[in-house]
Amino acid sequence: MNGEYIQLGHGSGGKMSQELIASIMLPAFSNNILAELHDGARITIHDTRLAFTTDSFIVKPLFFPGGDIGKLAVCGTVNDLAAAGAVPQYLSAAFIIEEGFPIWQLQKIVQSLQAAAQEAGVVIVTGDTKVVEKGAADGLYINTAGIGKQLDAVTIATAGVRPGQDIILSGYLGDHALAVMAERYGVMLPQTVSSDCAPLNGLVLDMLTAVPQISMLRDPTRGGVATALNEIAGQAKVGILLEEAAIPLRPEVAAVCELLGFDPLYLANEGKMLAFVDAEFTRRLLSVMHRHRYGGDARVIGRVTGKNPGLVGLRTRLGGVRLLDMRAADPLPRIC
Amino acid sequence: MNGEYIQLGHGSGGKMSQELIASIMLPAFSNNILAELHDGARITIHDTRLAFTTDSFIVKPLFFPGGDIGKLAVCGTVNDLAAAGAVPQYLSAAFIIEEGFPIWQLQKIVQSLQAAAQEAGVVIVTGDTKVVEKGAADGLYINTAGIGKQLDAVTIATAGVRPGQDIILSGYLGDHALAVMAERYGVMLPQTVSSDCAPLNGLVLDMLTAVPQISMLRDPTRGGVATALNEIAGQAKVGILLEEAAIPLRPEVAAVCELLGFDPLYLANEGKMLAFVDAEFTRRLLSVMHRHRYGGDARVIGRVTGKNPGLVGLRTRLGGVRLLDMRAADPLPRIC
Repeated sequence: MNGEYIQLGHGSGGKMSQELIASIMLPAFSNNILAELHDGARITIHDTRLAFTTDSFIVKPLFFPGGDIGKLAVCGTVNDLAAAGAVPQYLSAAFIIEEGFPIWQLQKIVQSLQAAAQEAGVVIVTGDTKVVEKGAADGLYINTAGIGKQLDAVTIATAGVRPGQDIILSGYLGDHALAVMAERYGVMLPQTVSSDCAPLNGLVLDMLTAVPQISMLRDPTRGGVATALNEIAGQAKVGILLEEAAIPLRPEVAAVCELLGFDPLYLANEGKMLAFVDAEFTRRLLSVMHRHRYGGDARVIGRVTGKNPGLVGLRTRLGGVRLLDMRAADPLPRIC
Repeated sequence: MNGEYIQLGHGSGGKMSQELIASIMLPAFSNNILAELHDGARITIHDTRLAFTTDSFIVKPLFFPGGDIGKLAVCGTVNDLAAAGAVPQYLSAAFIIEEGFPIWQLQKIVQSLQAAAQEAGVVIVTGDTKVVEKGAADGLYINTAGIGKQLDAVTIATAGVRPGQDIILSGYLGDHALAVMAERYGVMLPQTVSSDCAPLNGLVLDMLTAVPQISMLRDPTRGGVATALNEIAGQAKVGILLEEAAIPLRPEVAAVCELLGFDPLYLANEGKMLAFVDAEFTRRLLSVMHRHRYGGDARVIGRVTGKNPGLVGLRTRLGGVRLLDMRAADPLPRIC
């Protein structure tokens, strides 16, 4: 990659992101914890098992139906910790603000960040504020990092993913990406389409308490469900087969995607969770999820198979199988 | 502050920063840990006492004599943890990169970040890479967050600062700010002036091992020694009197400051530590510091007094006392 330049796709969470991380970041930072490539790093300090994660938020525009960059900055980090099998506890919040940014907007964002932190039950304990000249940032960027305590008797790792397991998705796809896209480009969408941005740690705690045998969790943000499952299939060396008819998709989201040429399986979500579990626990897990406000539409969307390791397929309504490959970049950049 | 706009000074670490944090951030995030306003938050998880901190780095230019944004991003966070009385262990690294950024430069920055992490003995365990359009960031910004284990039998807090204590500074002032300024504006400086950017956790561990009674530590970055001491004097409700003749200042730095109108006491350092200690321990502390590569020029620069609580004075070489007040903003923005 030397002699080349950064492109938007390097931040998409897709194949270009993977290549950048594999060729530049991993060789330099080489260590076992980072190499797991899980969004939440598992660390141990003084016999206490923690999870630690970070995310920068560059969403454009800053305000969108269903949320804003402040809410997103909390939910993104809280959900990464939850997906690592941890109970999120403490967050940092660091702001890079452009000169000339209206303080009332900052105040609104900060209040929404705090409201999300309260809902998630986490505390913002440290922060930083930097200001750059007008034109040197696009309004405001936020970074959050988070620490959580790993749950005992729970092991979330791709190593536990094996053929026969069910893949459960907690609800409808594509809402976040479409809501941000519509706000950015001035597209009119049905009022029912707004960001699903939500802290999922409560849902995940209920899930892991009822079924500690869950082997893998992942929140399908940048790159969507298809990219998340490709990563897991590749790391676990298993095949994945989804059932198109089982994928929870609102008719209006399906219609907008059809119209604009988006595949909802590649669109970012900010309030959804994927879970891998042995089929014997599926019924118990679904019943727990259905009782939670963020899991009411949970269902099994597919299965882990022993065939075609590393590949993700979609059995279409017509009965054929379509390959869901890893895309180079994201059709909608700056979605989170 | 409503109806107003963000200005560069709001990111200076000076009075405008304080006002922004006091009027917007603290009321929203209101909690005891954040309210301590220490750069490293002290938290407890499962009986393990940790420190947690975050910093975004927006230094301009990205490369400067003595370091670059990668080295800075590690040292800044490591030093905040050390100043909280903790042993830094794990860091996150999150990049916001502008489209078109040369990948060889990213590689250089990442390698320098890792070299600093290795020197400091910390591990980069989690990260994030976002890309924004050309013009939406100034090359590249880095956020690091860090976790450390608090040392037992050590309590670093402004509550322990009291009249009679000595104030020790670990070395020469102003090098970092001048090196960055010279590179940014194309000013020729003597080759001896380069950034002091360094991880100080080894030095601080030696200091706290020898003298666990140290009551306060602070790395004087944005706003320099004068701003750091103003914050401490205000929080501890004590007076501080510095001796101009005792302040370690290279003649060439003094000359450049005189020429350009900078006060070195307000310039950012990235490899210096301030320590407050009862006078009976001063000799032992200095002898330990003098044996460390980053503390060779340590000396007592002043004293805590019971007079003029909240104020910092400088006894000049002529014998008068000059007030070192808290400035509204920084003369050199984007220094870290």
